[in-house]
Amino acid sequence: MQRIAVDAMGGDNAPQAIVEGAVMAAEQGISVCLVGDQKAIERWLPKNSDIPIVHAEEQVAMDEAPLQALRRTSESSLRKMLDLVESGEVTGAMSCGHTGATMLGSVLHLKTLDKVDRPALAVVLPRKDGKKLVLLDVGANIDCTPEQLVCFAQMGAAYGRILGMDNPRVAVLANGEEEGKGNALVRDTLGLLAQTDLNLVGNMEPESAIDGGCDVLVCDGFVGNVLVKSLEAATSTVLHLFRQEIHAKWTGRFGAWLLTGAMKRLKNRVQWDAHSGSILLGTKGVVVVGHGRSNARAVCTAIQLAASAVNRGLVDRLAQHLK
Amino acid sequence: MQRIAVDAMGGDNAPQAIVEGAVMAAEQGISVCLVGDQKAIERWLPKNSDIPIVHAEEQVAMDEAPLQALRRTSESSLRKMLDLVESGEVTGAMSCGHTGATMLGSVLHLKTLDKVDRPALAVVLPRKDGKKLVLLDVGANIDCTPEQLVCFAQMGAAYGRILGMDNPRVAVLANGEEEGKGNALVRDTLGLLAQTDLNLVGNMEPESAIDGGCDVLVCDGFVGNVLVKSLEAATSTVLHLFRQEIHAKWTGRFGAWLLTGAMKRLKNRVQWDAHSGSILLGTKGVVVVGHGRSNARAVCTAIQLAASAVNRGLVDRLAQHLK
Repeated sequence: MQRIAVDAMGGDNAPQAIVEGAVMAAEQGISVCLVGDQKAIERWLPKNSDIPIVHAEEQVAMDEAPLQALRRTSESSLRKMLDLVESGEVTGAMSCGHTGATMLGSVLHLKTLDKVDRPALAVVLPRKDGKKLVLLDVGANIDCTPEQLVCFAQMGAAYGRILGMDNPRVAVLANGEEEGKGNALVRDTLGLLAQTDLNLVGNMEPESAIDGGCDVLVCDGFVGNVLVKSLEAATSTVLHLFRQEIHAKWTGRFGAWLLTGAMKRLKNRVQWDAHSGSILLGTKGVVVVGHGRSNARAVCTAIQLAASAVNRGLVDRLAQHLK
Repeated sequence: MQRIAVDAMGGDNAPQAIVEGAVMAAEQGISVCLVGDQKAIERWLPKNSDIPIVHAEEQVAMDEAPLQALRRTSESSLRKMLDLVESGEVTGAMSCGHTGATMLGSVLHLKTLDKVDRPALAVVLPRKDGKKLVLLDVGANIDCTPEQLVCFAQMGAAYGRILGMDNPRVAVLANGEEEGKGNALVRDTLGLLAQTDLNLVGNMEPESAIDGGCDVLVCDGFVGNVLVKSLEAATSTVLHLFRQEIHAKWTGRFGAWLLTGAMKRLKNRVQWDAHSGSILLGTKGVVVVGHGRSNARAVCTAIQLAASAVNRGLVDRLAQHLK
């Protein structure tokens, strides 16, 4: 039976939003347990809730260096959450806390799959054509080697297959699509990728990828993070300015009222903001990193992502694909 | 008197869109001259036009390596455009063609200012608070050193002052805002910037910058290009999906009709796509690089940008600030 351990103390809105999100996920039939300060969790948990709590004395602060945070204490909610995965008491984990510490803790305590040097964080973004784009790495590895990017490409393609993609087309994020474009890392990675059996389409700009030019887009974690956060920033600003312009005239306000439904559907379609969580690929255990600013709904979505990865047998299937 | 040389052969829509854009700029009182194939230009130029044409036999292809393109011939429209700047026959130049060749040609033929190793391409983006953000480099330098980024920061701050900013706040683009975030390049750059007299605010994510957290955002040309193109991709996709959702129901179509004005104003406010052109900072001459996909209106805007930089005395004032 599956159960997802949730770090109740990680994220800007913890523990309230995390507890509420876990309750929402439990109501949808996902078995969860909350890891963190028992009293703080109980404050937000409904009296009649049967969600188990695993008490943790401490928590990782957002400004701690990852290794230091993990060494300082084995009593943090993050560490205890990972311990539950390691021991097999739960089948997956989700934290909206410190990305670097979650990634490093997963490597140290869950270990990586064979042939995986560094795990990568992947997000699934909506494309313009209604299909999905796997983007990785979005922040687990800030300085990468070409060999690491090749491994990310292989894991991304394997993840694409697990999500139902047929022979996923792989591209490397670049500043142009002519041959030879890209920085040294991109050019070296493309050279190595050409020697693999991946379905390589070459170097690609963000717009082409979102338009549907590839199924898996590979980059280092620094650039991937900037990419995801730029999409998020642009989307939120367009919607913000649109609301401003709408309220400038009565015709706008009336028009906007008529468009309430369309706006809601639009917002659901442009979830580029990793609010649905990013998944760590390459560790021997399912770990989802939720957005730091997650509200209860986003927490629930990230827990669903972890549960769905467990149900799909992510770790075993990824290991098979990488053989 | 000022005059802007325009490369009529550069860009996806050349020469038609370039010639039409130059005509629009001339109608607004900007003195321009068109450089390129005389017959091709005359085909799109109104019969009664008095815009001078400087004939160029050849043109730079988009897939040529920059140095090769410049060495192959001195008869390209790009080279002849730069020659006009060098000889002082024009006061500025604009091309929507090969960015790398334009940048390299500017370095070779116009030379760089004292203390400038590599010039950088800067764009001015709209912020959420209605003010402006100077972003550089957006594609002239793909692999950069920390010392180069420090020079970009100094040029960006100087450009900000020229645009009327008071003691511009400078930030380095990063994947997070806690201390220590960023890749090796970002961390080394921040260390060097702390020793300058720039108004440094530290490392910053895209959203904070667009929200108004800084006035000048510095990054290498690879990441800056990905950032600008991500904003462009997100904006165009949001507007595309919005149109789809609108047309799903009659209320949406009626609402959208009421919102026509608001949508137009919105589009003018989210010109993140460098459609207004990016300006090369650090060369001894005003050179604007227009977007490759520019239509006539965007060409006109890019020519206006060049004319405005000439009027502000960009090159001399930049040289003074860098002393």
